[in-house]
Amino acid sequence: MKVFISKKTGLYYYYKGPGDYHCKEGILSESDIVSGEKQIKANTGREFLVLDANINDYAVKMKRGPQILLPKDLGYILARAGVDKESFIVEAGGGSGGASVFFGRFVKTVHTYEIVKEHCEIIEKNLKYMGVENVTVYNRDLGEGIEGEKDIDLLFLDMPEPGEILKGNLRGVKSGKYIVCYLPSIYQIHELFKVTSEKDDLYVEEITEVGLRHWKVRDRISRPEHKKEIDHTAFLVFIRKI
Amino acid sequence: MKVFISKKTGLYYYYKGPGDYHCKEGILSESDIVSGEKQIKANTGREFLVLDANINDYAVKMKRGPQILLPKDLGYILARAGVDKESFIVEAGGGSGGASVFFGRFVKTVHTYEIVKEHCEIIEKNLKYMGVENVTVYNRDLGEGIEGEKDIDLLFLDMPEPGEILKGNLRGVKSGKYIVCYLPSIYQIHELFKVTSEKDDLYVEEITEVGLRHWKVRDRISRPEHKKEIDHTAFLVFIRKI
Amino acid sequence: MKVFISKKTGLYYYYKGPGDYHCKEGILSESDIVSGEKQIKANTGREFLVLDANINDYAVKMKRGPQILLPKDLGYILARAGVDKESFIVEAGGGSGGASVFFGRFVKTVHTYEIVKEHCEIIEKNLKYMGVENVTVYNRDLGEGIEGEKDIDLLFLDMPEPGEILKGNLRGVKSGKYIVCYLPSIYQIHELFKVTSEKDDLYVEEITEVGLRHWKVRDRISRPEHKKEIDHTAFLVFIRKI
Amino acid sequence: MKVFISKKTGLYYYYKGPGDYHCKEGILSESDIVSGEKQIKANTGREFLVLDANINDYAVKMKRGPQILLPKDLGYILARAGVDKESFIVEAGGGSGGASVFFGRFVKTVHTYEIVKEHCEIIEKNLKYMGVENVTVYNRDLGEGIEGEKDIDLLFLDMPEPGEILKGNLRGVKSGKYIVCYLPSIYQIHELFKVTSEKDDLYVEEITEVGLRHWKVRDRISRPEHKKEIDHTAFLVFIRKI
Repeated sequence: MKVFISKKTGLYYYYKGPGDYHCKEGILSESDIVSGEKQIKANTGREFLVLDANINDYAVKMKRGPQILLPKDLGYILARAGVDKESFIVEAGGGSGGASVFFGRFVKTVHTYEIVKEHCEIIEKNLKYMGVENVTVYNRDLGEGIEGEKDIDLLFLDMPEPGEILKGNLRGVKSGKYIVCYLPSIYQIHELFKVTSEKDDLYVEEITEVGLRHWKVRDRISRPEHKKEIDHTAFLVFIRKI
Repeated sequence: MKVFISKKTGLYYYYKGPGDYHCKEGILSESDIVSGEKQIKANTGREFLVLDANINDYAVKMKRGPQILLPKDLGYILARAGVDKESFIVEAGGGSGGASVFFGRFVKTVHTYEIVKEHCEIIEKNLKYMGVENVTVYNRDLGEGIEGEKDIDLLFLDMPEPGEILKGNLRGVKSGKYIVCYLPSIYQIHELFKVTSEKDDLYVEEITEVGLRHWKVRDRISRPEHKKEIDHTAFLVFIRKI
Repeated sequence: MKVFISKKTGLYYYYKGPGDYHCKEGILSESDIVSGEKQIKANTGREFLVLDANINDYAVKMKRGPQILLPKDLGYILARAGVDKESFIVEAGGGSGGASVFFGRFVKTVHTYEIVKEHCEIIEKNLKYMGVENVTVYNRDLGEGIEGEKDIDLLFLDMPEPGEILKGNLRGVKSGKYIVCYLPSIYQIHELFKVTSEKDDLYVEEITEVGLRHWKVRDRISRPEHKKEIDHTAFLVFIRKI
Repeated sequence: MKVFISKKTGLYYYYKGPGDYHCKEGILSESDIVSGEKQIKANTGREFLVLDANINDYAVKMKRGPQILLPKDLGYILARAGVDKESFIVEAGGGSGGASVFFGRFVKTVHTYEIVKEHCEIIEKNLKYMGVENVTVYNRDLGEGIEGEKDIDLLFLDMPEPGEILKGNLRGVKSGKYIVCYLPSIYQIHELFKVTSEKDDLYVEEITEVGLRHWKVRDRISRPEHKKEIDHTAFLVFIRKI
């Protein structure tokens, strides 16, 4: 897949070919597209940069379901939770599979639990579309499935009430490794605290919020971008398994 | 390696054994340590949680050199730059090797360029200590080495004046992939802009700052942690190779 | 003026009377409005809170011109610059008079310089509408007017290139008091620095950015509000007159 | 009072005179101090800027008691709550009087309630020291005093459990005006919500957090200041009286 970036508007266009490409800024001819030139002109005179698509460009076209986890949160979880290419992640509340695809790209194996059948189908489609093959999706409640899982390096819970899981049997999570909860409200962390403070095998190591700020810098301008503030997503609770 | 967390002070202690463990909060007996109990008492009566060390615990003991890149920045770079387990990263300005170790854990191959010989030695030690084997360290200026590199999925530049590299030949970076610059000052981004705005094969896609906010939540308290604000580190410039 | 707040939508309505009030959520009868009841019903059954307008409600109806300074910035300037009810403020670049109205409400006298005649008219209208009588508006360049001003407690410059003013004669500003510049870009502060670093009578004491974060807290929800992040406005430079 | 700013260290020194001034950076002679020169040298050769003290310099020397409200919060409250030079403020939980001094400087009259006798004495001393004469301090529980107060333009509650006051009789607060609560924890806002959601005469209009970020800009540097992040202070709840 090719990407065209309009030099005038900054808009991105995705081209799978073959043939000419028609967009609201003009027509790009196939001969120009395959010429190997890094900049080409549409019939309207508009200039476009031509580059190969990367994984982010493909992700733009992923099927959207209930919610999307952002790179700011996923990246921090990956970096902070101490996993690597050899790790095994179990996650629940997969939504549209953003986390499944992401974790699958970096670790060895991922098991995704999702109780809503339609969401499972979206996740499966997105995994296939993104070419991620080391993720298994279970259309099942994690509370049931967790009994059968073992040697977990990271248990990721993207659900409103993770306390139910935490109350249960967590023998499958390795000692010293993390359970990470993704919780939009402080209220939920108070609820979580009621569970973790009663469990000898859980230690809340960090509660974090990741923020992003985009900047615009050129010529005589250098300021945070207007209208591009990232809204709050969730608080991340890093619980260490004892 | 074992980790002991004091229930009273919250301090972490690292134990390689064998033998009893002496710390300022008391003595933990070897028999207790190896008993498999998740909570043990020191001779002083203080209680400690006992857990296996994870990669973060090992990282605490890494040899420190010039500077340390934080998980908040490294995680976002990994997530945003669209790399994965199959990727090849070239980086320069390796400092004490934090980025080398980190990238090595998640991608296929890393080439690290570092002109200061002493820093190279620190990086090599840290790679060995952390068991990361897919990173090659070059005690050489990237400006010379870049000519010989090809099929780069991510070029990471942690140096005050990356403009010199960007002015040069970047054929080794794949079309559509990223060059990421790590720059503490806005001034440096203005300097960078002078270079990127003249180069047809570079497109500044995003300039971002990643923030972290730690929270304290328990019983009747829920507020950002005092004295744990993370200082500004750097701005991240994501430049796309055309 | 009365304010009606819809209990269902949270929308605010402003009523000057007399007569019934018609809005998209229904009709509120005059007899209900003047009854003294704190909650009344529209003919549609919708409930509304009834309260007296305060200065913010009036401000909502101020005539808008070029730009609006926000309470977050104005409040911090007032608190940080050490003025009080006895102070004299000179300001330039008045825009639509938001700062003039604001400062006028808290200090003794304000002189506002604004070179665009149409903006002066907007400022005058807003001052009159808000009942602020201690502000004098000059349709004149501050660079000329500053010579005639003396005993200034705060000089507030809301203009893209305040360096021109700073290069000039600042004898009118009292020793130890502040010149505050309102600058959207870091680039402008670099430009400003070139001037202040050459002037013996200016000392940059603080460069600050004020942020606001709105929260939603109720029942089981407590999180930053979505879609209500305040965009970046400007950096505030507090320069002390020697 | 004079202020000396060391050009080398950036430290501030406060001089009440008469006589020479001795500090760790050297001795400034009285003849130099009163010469009217804006820059003078100590016997050590160090250069100092000489300027008149302003209200902030005096505030540095205020007697410290339990806690200090910061300009970022006080300024926003003043700007957002719609008060002015004619306003009457009632506040409780005065601490060391920072809010009393501040509000006194900008509005007509302030009544401060503080149950701890020693704190009242600190507040009185600070008011006298700062020359603020329109504040009356009551060594009494606001819950008792509120009955006798009327025509309040702003009721400011800096106490852990303002719910007790809110449950009571608030007839003294004018319709449409604000009760502002200063609460360090989200938990406290949940507690507050239980009260406000039951009271027909209270409407929570805004819950806000004010942040400050200090920047360093000079020559080739422009970045947020290290070690000068302002810690979280409190959330501000703006409740409108119906």
